[in-house]
Amino acid sequence: MSKIFLTINIIAIGLFGTSSAFADGHTQDYSVSGFFIFNTLLFLIGGFLVMWMAAGFAMLETGLVRAKNASTQLTKNVALFSLASIAYFIVGYNLMYPGEGWIIEGWLGTFSPTSLEPVGVKPDGVDLEYASVGSDFFFQLMFCAATASIVSGTVAERVKLWPFLIFTIVLTGIFYPISASWKWGEGWLDAMDFQDFAGSTVVHATGAAAALAGALVIGARHGRYRDDGSVIPMPGSNLPLATLGMFILWLGWFGFNGGSQLAMGTIGNIADVSRIFANTNTAAAGGAVAALILTQILYGKSDLTMVLNGALAGLVSITAEPLEPSLWLATIIGAIGGIIIVFSVPILDRLKIDDVVGAISVHGIAGIWGTLAVVLSNSKATLGTQIIGTVSICLFTFVVSYVAWTILDMLMGARVSEENEMAGLDKSELGIDAYPEFTKN
Amino acid sequence: MSKIFLTINIIAIGLFGTSSAFADGHTQDYSVSGFFIFNTLLFLIGGFLVMWMAAGFAMLETGLVRAKNASTQLTKNVALFSLASIAYFIVGYNLMYPGEGWIIEGWLGTFSPTSLEPVGVKPDGVDLEYASVGSDFFFQLMFCAATASIVSGTVAERVKLWPFLIFTIVLTGIFYPISASWKWGEGWLDAMDFQDFAGSTVVHATGAAAALAGALVIGARHGRYRDDGSVIPMPGSNLPLATLGMFILWLGWFGFNGGSQLAMGTIGNIADVSRIFANTNTAAAGGAVAALILTQILYGKSDLTMVLNGALAGLVSITAEPLEPSLWLATIIGAIGGIIIVFSVPILDRLKIDDVVGAISVHGIAGIWGTLAVVLSNSKATLGTQIIGTVSICLFTFVVSYVAWTILDMLMGARVSEENEMAGLDKSELGIDAYPEFTKN
Amino acid sequence: MSKIFLTINIIAIGLFGTSSAFADGHTQDYSVSGFFIFNTLLFLIGGFLVMWMAAGFAMLETGLVRAKNASTQLTKNVALFSLASIAYFIVGYNLMYPGEGWIIEGWLGTFSPTSLEPVGVKPDGVDLEYASVGSDFFFQLMFCAATASIVSGTVAERVKLWPFLIFTIVLTGIFYPISASWKWGEGWLDAMDFQDFAGSTVVHATGAAAALAGALVIGARHGRYRDDGSVIPMPGSNLPLATLGMFILWLGWFGFNGGSQLAMGTIGNIADVSRIFANTNTAAAGGAVAALILTQILYGKSDLTMVLNGALAGLVSITAEPLEPSLWLATIIGAIGGIIIVFSVPILDRLKIDDVVGAISVHGIAGIWGTLAVVLSNSKATLGTQIIGTVSICLFTFVVSYVAWTILDMLMGARVSEENEMAGLDKSELGIDAYPEFTKN
Repeated sequence: MSKIFLTINIIAIGLFGTSSAFADGHTQDYSVSGFFIFNTLLFLIGGFLVMWMAAGFAMLETGLVRAKNASTQLTKNVALFSLASIAYFIVGYNLMYPGEGWIIEGWLGTFSPTSLEPVGVKPDGVDLEYASVGSDFFFQLMFCAATASIVSGTVAERVKLWPFLIFTIVLTGIFYPISASWKWGEGWLDAMDFQDFAGSTVVHATGAAAALAGALVIGARHGRYRDDGSVIPMPGSNLPLATLGMFILWLGWFGFNGGSQLAMGTIGNIADVSRIFANTNTAAAGGAVAALILTQILYGKSDLTMVLNGALAGLVSITAEPLEPSLWLATIIGAIGGIIIVFSVPILDRLKIDDVVGAISVHGIAGIWGTLAVVLSNSKATLGTQIIGTVSICLFTFVVSYVAWTILDMLMGARVSEENEMAGLDKSELGIDAYPEFTKN
Repeated sequence: MSKIFLTINIIAIGLFGTSSAFADGHTQDYSVSGFFIFNTLLFLIGGFLVMWMAAGFAMLETGLVRAKNASTQLTKNVALFSLASIAYFIVGYNLMYPGEGWIIEGWLGTFSPTSLEPVGVKPDGVDLEYASVGSDFFFQLMFCAATASIVSGTVAERVKLWPFLIFTIVLTGIFYPISASWKWGEGWLDAMDFQDFAGSTVVHATGAAAALAGALVIGARHGRYRDDGSVIPMPGSNLPLATLGMFILWLGWFGFNGGSQLAMGTIGNIADVSRIFANTNTAAAGGAVAALILTQILYGKSDLTMVLNGALAGLVSITAEPLEPSLWLATIIGAIGGIIIVFSVPILDRLKIDDVVGAISVHGIAGIWGTLAVVLSNSKATLGTQIIGTVSICLFTFVVSYVAWTILDMLMGARVSEENEMAGLDKSELGIDAYPEFTKN
Repeated sequence: MSKIFLTINIIAIGLFGTSSAFADGHTQDYSVSGFFIFNTLLFLIGGFLVMWMAAGFAMLETGLVRAKNASTQLTKNVALFSLASIAYFIVGYNLMYPGEGWIIEGWLGTFSPTSLEPVGVKPDGVDLEYASVGSDFFFQLMFCAATASIVSGTVAERVKLWPFLIFTIVLTGIFYPISASWKWGEGWLDAMDFQDFAGSTVVHATGAAAALAGALVIGARHGRYRDDGSVIPMPGSNLPLATLGMFILWLGWFGFNGGSQLAMGTIGNIADVSRIFANTNTAAAGGAVAALILTQILYGKSDLTMVLNGALAGLVSITAEPLEPSLWLATIIGAIGGIIIVFSVPILDRLKIDDVVGAISVHGIAGIWGTLAVVLSNSKATLGTQIIGTVSICLFTFVVSYVAWTILDMLMGARVSEENEMAGLDKSELGIDAYPEFTKN
């Protein structure tokens, strides 16, 4: 058979007139370069989808804060993404992916800025099985920025702009890259066979641990809890905006999980990316439906913000292993994520941990659940290793973040005065209203 | 020539050092696998674009309802997409694409849940000419969910949450898959050569028929029509949101129509996808401009909501045949769609059919127009067959939907009480305001 | 080595059973068609991302106008994109890319409508090294529409709907295609080696020049400037919407700049697209951070609208050369763009040039800066040629636009009456409120 095929192939080439079409001689063999091109394209598409999640976090969080803090929330989200972009290029990327250049083997990478390949790179010396450095950097940067986006939601409505932004730089330039290197930079957790496909722990629980540290150091919003411990509702000002944010995140997650396959240049890889897309979608659906039904049962009425967070919890839950589960299992993993946060959000409030958007529950508790749930479908994962992985990364991030928040609080005061908090951060931090014509002061 | 080329090729391979780069032996011939990879990629990209349309419908509809119903509209849209995702995987997909497994040949598929390919699928046994099952399922699911999104706009502002969601499950799990199987599952309409490229009828008129049934069973909003039959305007609360929704839908439609080429791994196929993108865009433009000019002429002022619906009507109109028309014809087909809805919307109101967002006109009337317009450019289509196709699918969907809505109304009451309708569904159905600080009550 | 590889390859083909899989004989050699398919795919993905920028401009501008003008701003943006789509297909595309058909060699292209390739095009006669005509048309159309979107922001809140739309038709059908042909249609500026990779001048400064002409002819908003020349703030009504618009533009810019590589079917090309993505992102980040810090220093408080415009200025600045700079240089080029607009916006106000959204600064001043900055990294660029390029294109566009605006003003009055301006354009031009329940008239 092979001979016949070869003949056809050669004839086809002749018919297509390749020798004239490619007179400049840049003929290229796709059986060699195809991997590189397809994989790079996956990172670029995945990367722009995850970049879009920055907008999703911004809209979700701005929709869930009160109008008097909306401009500040927007500013934080634009600024954190920008600062993360710069910090990750100057320090983070090589700290996270040190290759052979560890300072402490498997624990601490190297401090050096990112260099891209030269323009018009030639095949020699390029790893044709992987992808371009530029696309990998672009893709990984977006994961790093997501970590900081998670924090901004929790500490909203009382944290000062600049301390928050300085924390963002440290988190995205140093803290996240270090703990992420333990797994994705081929560090000690990777050597232990800790499994976290796209980052239920490496990204999401990490962000939640940093957020929890911030919430504890900064404290709850004034008037959030009565003396008897009950919660005073502070409803989000713009739920269509929050819902838009959730949809953006859902969309971006296809890039987040799908791109983490890291390859699509073979039949097996592209079919796996397809599985991941389908499982990611169904887990989100499971989380949303579980929260919808559960809040209806518990409270007699469905709760939109819980449905939004349920979908996100489903997405976080499937992120540690979006490939191996069947559609059934993926739906269930997501649904359990949605159930978890319906209980977790009020529990945190009972502990007087004031998380404005529910990010600690959605990204932290559901993230840990997702990391443990890997054992349900991936035979390489053991419960012990999964626990070690998520505990060590969360603990590390929590401790260094707590120290950082404490130092920032001592040096410059991490939260605004009570007076400014009451008036709204848009007045004290920015002097610009988000909706000057809609709200009466 | 061919021999020279082959020589260059071999030399290039030698230069690239492939034997070391691919030491693990997974060399792959793209002349074989390329079709599969490219086609799957088309489904994944097309699929995430159509998924994004769920956000578009949510924003469009929420912008066009009054503020007191906005949270409920958001909840419905998130929930319907989630429920459709689950219903289509458990029942819908195989019911729509039964392959050899029809229960009634050409009329009724098979009831079984979706299974994806195994992880890391190998070429043996895979149809390398098509695409991965996961990507096809993902893509087709999004079309199914769109059908339910159409319904939620029409019946907004008075339908109860749970009856609507139960209808969604039946529509996306059973009704839509059955009628869609007649054409896209290679059923009896396909055997007749009924032409509907991306679903002017199969998706859009189907959604509109289900919506019409709902509108008739549930009835108009209280206070919508005066005794003399004239209409009391109930203006949408957030037109920027509605416009955003329209833009999202326009963007997503490139995936909707372009992905429906079902292949992009050859020169002819990718050039066809390009034609489809260009025609889809120009039809939307034609619809928007036609509605812009026509409302200016008719009413002395242009009407933004008509312009938005005009663009959408243009998109619906070109969906049955986005490939064959020239740019001229595509623009005209879209423009006629835009003209149709400027007349259709007030006619429905005169019939006291209360369609909150104009979905019956946009997806139904323009969908039928688009289905018939296939004969203008596609020689395989005949007017008779196109009429049979659109009438049979619309009629089937209308009848079964009417029965379903009637049963739901009898069992649990499909619409809220007059008192709750006046207070707003956000109070009665959810207890959560969409914009607590912007509106006074 | 090459011989061994070839043997493996042939065996693999045999194993995959290609002769049966491709029984219909459409075997295709990707070493020939791969370029075409990948390049076309780049245009389609890039094109839908740039199309999405139309929504970004619409949201940015609508968020920055006052609520009483929001519906009109939305209508303008939907209509301008639609009209540009039609004008570019009927006239613009061939005027911009005349090939051999110049009316005046290198200066004026040809007037003829766009024709796409036939359906199911065969390899014969197709330029397999480039991409499909449909994809190229689709991609280039989106750049043309962006030019008009820039104008609509500057002249907001006082220009009449129809004169603006007529200007849009002339700009997108004739003015932009002519000046763009000088560079991208291989006209006289291209022959001089003027460098403008993705259009800092060709698109952005062109849009700004047309906007400046409009602002001068139409004049400032009533009450914008006091007699002493000081500015009366007219704050944007919806900053979350404006921020969303900025994020959409940031996302779309990956298509804008990345797609302008025009090819991704080789290792060198896809790695270059990756560089462009990374540089585009870091330039935006640099612009946002520079504006954030600078406004904090200058005014004691950061200014969200300046941060948004800073990010956009960073994007505009890198657009003329997103490929060659290192990440460091790209960040700095973007940051200088962000700094420029912090000073440029108040300077324009001192000149009583009323630019509602800051588009002249962002797209014009930063666009010129970006065009000149090409000399920092691209050895083919000289400062002299860059100045000639940007001056000639800006001057041409400004003059013809000034004439067009003047004629429109004489014929139909380009701006609304003072009374209508005070009441809001949504009353006079449309009769439809954007937020009927949020604002008190």
